[in-house]
Amino acid sequence: MIFLLRTLYFLLFLSAIFIACEPNRNQVKVEPNIPENVKRYGQVIRVKPEKLEYYRELHANPWPCVVENIRECNIRNYTIYLQDDHLFAYFEYIGDDFADDMKKMEEDTCTQRWWKETDPCQEPIINAKEGEWWTNMEEVFHSD
Amino acid sequence: MIFLLRTLYFLLFLSAIFIACEPNRNQVKVEPNIPENVKRYGQVIRVKPEKLEYYRELHANPWPCVVENIRECNIRNYTIYLQDDHLFAYFEYIGDDFADDMKKMEEDTCTQRWWKETDPCQEPIINAKEGEWWTNMEEVFHSD
Repeated sequence: MIFLLRTLYFLLFLSAIFIACEPNRNQVKVEPNIPENVKRYGQVIRVKPEKLEYYRELHANPWPCVVENIRECNIRNYTIYLQDDHLFAYFEYIGDDFADDMKKMEEDTCTQRWWKETDPCQEPIINAKEGEWWTNMEEVFHSD
Repeated sequence: MIFLLRTLYFLLFLSAIFIACEPNRNQVKVEPNIPENVKRYGQVIRVKPEKLEYYRELHANPWPCVVENIRECNIRNYTIYLQDDHLFAYFEYIGDDFADDMKKMEEDTCTQRWWKETDPCQEPIINAKEGEWWTNMEEVFHSD
């Protein structure tokens, strides 16, 4: 009887370890893990050649409160590239109300001060729509 | 004695579950998880206006063997955007020898056939360097 109980407990013990570790084993990855709710954005704007160096300087050492606000507004993996007189942005949005989060971003006083520095460096692309600042580009291909 | 043994096994059982589940709890995230070894690329090329529709069609339904080869060459999270007559690519490289993986990609016969279709749709940007196809852009900002 004692032997049976011991064996039972031992088997339960082994099963518990096996079951509990199973999801872990599947998660051991060295890969980017893009959750399903992510929405990708690609955007473009022009940079004024005479303001390019100042724009570069600002973005090489962005204000911590700006970076913090970007994260609070559910933006992740945000990169800006430069080519000639154009800037290209790629970012991933993980929230569920982009318009609301952008409103929140606009209301942040630190971001407002940041934009006072960066806005004069930029201008919309030639084919931008009326009132458009950064232009959202069309996604033509994606592979995870 | 039996009681002691039972208690001991029961405690071991509880500890095993707790310890095995601990890493799991920390991994419950709804966020993109970008590993440290990822290298980001932003690239640009022109698309010939008369070939745009064909380029769009091809990339709306890419050949499975092309997508498979992209992954085998350690490219992840690859997106191509279109704006006017330019294409912008963003991707993440998770391997440790980019040149070698690009060589591997070039040697893939399926990819060679794919490029026979896509290459005539594209041309380098006006300021591309001699021999450059897609131009690597300069990263001026990044926030995780």
